[in-house]
Amino acid sequence: MPVTYTTSQIAELLESVSNWGRWGKEDQRGALNYITNEKRAAAARLVQSGGTVSLSLPLATRAARDNPTPVTHLMIRSGQVGHPLGSWGCADYFAIEPHGLATTHLDALCHHFYRGKMYNDFDYTEVDFQGAHKCAIDVARDGVISRGVLIDIPKIRKTEWVEPGEAIYPEDLEAAERDHRVQVGEGDVMLLRTGRFKLRRSKGAQATLTSMAGLHASCLKWLHERKIAVLGSDAISDVLPTPYDAPLRMPIHTGTLVMMGVHLIDNADLDLLAEKCARDGRYAFMFTLLPLVLERGTASPANPVALF
Amino acid sequence: MPVTYTTSQIAELLESVSNWGRWGKEDQRGALNYITNEKRAAAARLVQSGGTVSLSLPLATRAARDNPTPVTHLMIRSGQVGHPLGSWGCADYFAIEPHGLATTHLDALCHHFYRGKMYNDFDYTEVDFQGAHKCAIDVARDGVISRGVLIDIPKIRKTEWVEPGEAIYPEDLEAAERDHRVQVGEGDVMLLRTGRFKLRRSKGAQATLTSMAGLHASCLKWLHERKIAVLGSDAISDVLPTPYDAPLRMPIHTGTLVMMGVHLIDNADLDLLAEKCARDGRYAFMFTLLPLVLERGTASPANPVALF
Amino acid sequence: MPVTYTTSQIAELLESVSNWGRWGKEDQRGALNYITNEKRAAAARLVQSGGTVSLSLPLATRAARDNPTPVTHLMIRSGQVGHPLGSWGCADYFAIEPHGLATTHLDALCHHFYRGKMYNDFDYTEVDFQGAHKCAIDVARDGVISRGVLIDIPKIRKTEWVEPGEAIYPEDLEAAERDHRVQVGEGDVMLLRTGRFKLRRSKGAQATLTSMAGLHASCLKWLHERKIAVLGSDAISDVLPTPYDAPLRMPIHTGTLVMMGVHLIDNADLDLLAEKCARDGRYAFMFTLLPLVLERGTASPANPVALF
Amino acid sequence: MPVTYTTSQIAELLESVSNWGRWGKEDQRGALNYITNEKRAAAARLVQSGGTVSLSLPLATRAARDNPTPVTHLMIRSGQVGHPLGSWGCADYFAIEPHGLATTHLDALCHHFYRGKMYNDFDYTEVDFQGAHKCAIDVARDGVISRGVLIDIPKIRKTEWVEPGEAIYPEDLEAAERDHRVQVGEGDVMLLRTGRFKLRRSKGAQATLTSMAGLHASCLKWLHERKIAVLGSDAISDVLPTPYDAPLRMPIHTGTLVMMGVHLIDNADLDLLAEKCARDGRYAFMFTLLPLVLERGTASPANPVALF
Repeated sequence: MPVTYTTSQIAELLESVSNWGRWGKEDQRGALNYITNEKRAAAARLVQSGGTVSLSLPLATRAARDNPTPVTHLMIRSGQVGHPLGSWGCADYFAIEPHGLATTHLDALCHHFYRGKMYNDFDYTEVDFQGAHKCAIDVARDGVISRGVLIDIPKIRKTEWVEPGEAIYPEDLEAAERDHRVQVGEGDVMLLRTGRFKLRRSKGAQATLTSMAGLHASCLKWLHERKIAVLGSDAISDVLPTPYDAPLRMPIHTGTLVMMGVHLIDNADLDLLAEKCARDGRYAFMFTLLPLVLERGTASPANPVALF
Repeated sequence: MPVTYTTSQIAELLESVSNWGRWGKEDQRGALNYITNEKRAAAARLVQSGGTVSLSLPLATRAARDNPTPVTHLMIRSGQVGHPLGSWGCADYFAIEPHGLATTHLDALCHHFYRGKMYNDFDYTEVDFQGAHKCAIDVARDGVISRGVLIDIPKIRKTEWVEPGEAIYPEDLEAAERDHRVQVGEGDVMLLRTGRFKLRRSKGAQATLTSMAGLHASCLKWLHERKIAVLGSDAISDVLPTPYDAPLRMPIHTGTLVMMGVHLIDNADLDLLAEKCARDGRYAFMFTLLPLVLERGTASPANPVALF
Repeated sequence: MPVTYTTSQIAELLESVSNWGRWGKEDQRGALNYITNEKRAAAARLVQSGGTVSLSLPLATRAARDNPTPVTHLMIRSGQVGHPLGSWGCADYFAIEPHGLATTHLDALCHHFYRGKMYNDFDYTEVDFQGAHKCAIDVARDGVISRGVLIDIPKIRKTEWVEPGEAIYPEDLEAAERDHRVQVGEGDVMLLRTGRFKLRRSKGAQATLTSMAGLHASCLKWLHERKIAVLGSDAISDVLPTPYDAPLRMPIHTGTLVMMGVHLIDNADLDLLAEKCARDGRYAFMFTLLPLVLERGTASPANPVALF
Repeated sequence: MPVTYTTSQIAELLESVSNWGRWGKEDQRGALNYITNEKRAAAARLVQSGGTVSLSLPLATRAARDNPTPVTHLMIRSGQVGHPLGSWGCADYFAIEPHGLATTHLDALCHHFYRGKMYNDFDYTEVDFQGAHKCAIDVARDGVISRGVLIDIPKIRKTEWVEPGEAIYPEDLEAAERDHRVQVGEGDVMLLRTGRFKLRRSKGAQATLTSMAGLHASCLKWLHERKIAVLGSDAISDVLPTPYDAPLRMPIHTGTLVMMGVHLIDNADLDLLAEKCARDGRYAFMFTLLPLVLERGTASPANPVALF
């Protein structure tokens, strides 16, 4: 069911998935509100073997086609014997721009605007040189702990990866649910695998932003109905390019961050997770992501972990 | 039982708590090895209500007496309407030195040396301008997920905080166990509350490094026998000052990081956790800390979370 | 002649020293236009002995009362024998916030606004997250090379330093001219010594911003009539505190940067220069400051040098 | 006269151009000692018109083939009306790795080692995690002010640029001297133009480090006999590749920085200077470079200026 919406259709679609006001007009947490204490307790009850899988890329300190602003990692001191500062140990420093395509990170709801607004009708001017005064990353300081569900698209398409530029449709999501014998539901962290890192490991970094695999805009209604709490991907959730001009160019970003209040995880490495899920025949697990408490921050680098 | 060891006694003590070789001569994970799959699964079974408490300070962007190198947090762009880059959202940048006394962080085993060695006999020269080639923070990339146990010293001493410079002894730990009806055991993350942040909130930042509350060296044997996996504190675990000259000046750092291979969590904010534990009458919980995957890094800023 | 202006008097004063439009409505260089080729050639003709004095503080890498955001200076590599990257040499990295009270720097004209405007009626919105699109530091990319004149106030007041909070008046400037046998004129770089670093060397860093020695607002007319090109100081040119509320709180900054288009040099170390001038009986010299070419930058750290 | 030296010949050549001990065994300034007061005074006497040319590239904030670690330039605040911090002005921040191929900079003598030594027999261990304890960039804090001489190789070869990988020989230098009617002499700053930036402007950034135009090793004796103080280039002075293995891979770097104590200026933009010199028929001028006073620094970004 590939469709190209008109500009006004996509604007309507975005309106139709709005959660503005659902949790009060002062709410800054959005769909994180779906993760109740009960949901977390139930997630913990999923744990059986105690096995873990990290979903984080290493912080990338070298420039690459998909990493124009690499992490700076430098040593402050180390243990030269007799060195006045360094004799006892070592310490380091790093500088990071967490957004982009090279760092596994959680986008704050303030990261994206639509018609001058962020989630829940907060104005774009709430972000200034001091950072975000609304919907910053520290709204998630207590952690994103819930049920995680992997949706492995290459598996159901019987391919190694979804080609850059190819869209993923609601039918794919439902096919995956049937295949994986799981159903995405309220408060879940849905993790969408496109196979981007399998491709990168095989063929190197691809042209990015201009062409990435991801969800077609028609998935927005599906995500909204399922009441997911957080959406993650090994890419950036949106398929690119889209036929829409800015500010509709990334309808998934707009629909999730701005309209639904759904936080996004970008650039999660889902390859080991997919192997583990296939091996265990099990696509739901306890999911944990603990963002750094960066007040007024627009994102946090993160090391999400799945616990089985 | 306050004691002052002689220099040779303390050297002997350090030798006596060594775990070098216990998990093989190539091991770089140290006491994290105590956290088995079974231990993690058991930790998950502790979860009842699903309530969470973050143990992280906010990243501190202002200089203070205990923060000479504050985090730099700057905006890269934001959404001025019509701005070529910024019309659609915002992004930021931060630079951090995770060690010190202002950031909640997990010390890598490479952070501390003793007689030119780090944990498991690795040489200090394994740390160079590229970072740590052994025992870096990414050995914990799958996360520190285990049973957490709070030891609340001010509670058992019936005081608001332990005064800077005052030592905590094995008797205190055991008194706390009795009071808290919990026993620290193999694979646990032990969190030691001195009340430092209660003091800071009451009286401002104190002179640090020269004077902090923490464990007396005589606790090392206790920690070793209990086979804890990780030690955390709202200070830096060591009492300061000690009567010992470098390199024995911080025997808890040396005994845990270097000899036992026990990772340390420094500057965790344990005040809300203490309230929660007292209110619930329960001092054990599921503990999660997910360090950033900084290869060759000497620490990671972290947001540890307790789940009840 | 200490005077306290009313708010409207000071607003009038600021208007009266305006150079807006003097060099065309597109001009971004302001009073640097006074430094003609002839002026530079004449400055070079002042050189006799070839002796030099640097007017720069070292870049300050440690936090202090007057340095809350120290320069970060870290090594990238160095020459450990056998090290794959470092065997042949060394390299480093630094991060700097050039403004403030600890770094010798040249303020760009964009640094200060008055009633929403910078020099020559450019709007404050010309500065955004990308930096300054008008009046950035790179307008001085060909260097500030002119006659420099030292005005040594402690010398004429027969004191070691001007006390923090004390104002300097036009009479002082003229007394210094008589004493120094020099007259400040068109295109000159006027360097005002308050003795701040003599004080700092004697008594440590003082409370700053709340109390600094500097020019009284009544000097603005004098500076305007003399047609100086650049004003420098060992402090920040303005006396502080002033009795005026923002945005009139720093009338010298407003009058020079915004109204006259006079660039400011802050935190120049003028102590050695003062000794040299007194010893040689000569207060005019060839002055050179070569700012880094930071397009859209609001300042450059600098090492101004006087050549005799 | 293209020649390929044997390894032992080039080692001999390097020994033959040594200035170690020439200015005493504690000297850290090397050939800067050739710039006497008289030399500076004579340089000032070269000034006629007062015209200036900057030799600095803009600080490059975007990654490129020849710029893997771009300068980070971010705003700290700006003038949003009513903003508590920003109403009065703007300020910024930058982070820089001055070495490499994208920033005009002055190499400190400590930047390069040969057989474990830097200039004047100082050991490589003088550089540690704190930076360079000998031969750091601040030895030039009083500025590099001398006669500058441009050697424009494309002009004498009647080409637009010297192709990457092509060597420049003593004969070229002498042909240029004849053409330019100038002779390089004691204390001069010699600026070697290869036309690299003309090439870059025409054809984009080239593969670098593997292939750059520069001086053949046989020029070392010539440079030594002429007693230049500083060598600058629009590339990095060395031709690359050379047939020599490390540590002889960059004989000009080794011969100048380590053996002669000649500071190097890398990546100077000499295109406008070449036009000016050709137009005026004059290849000598007053040269000024004022490095930032970064104690223990291995280089300084710089804006060298020629004054005519």
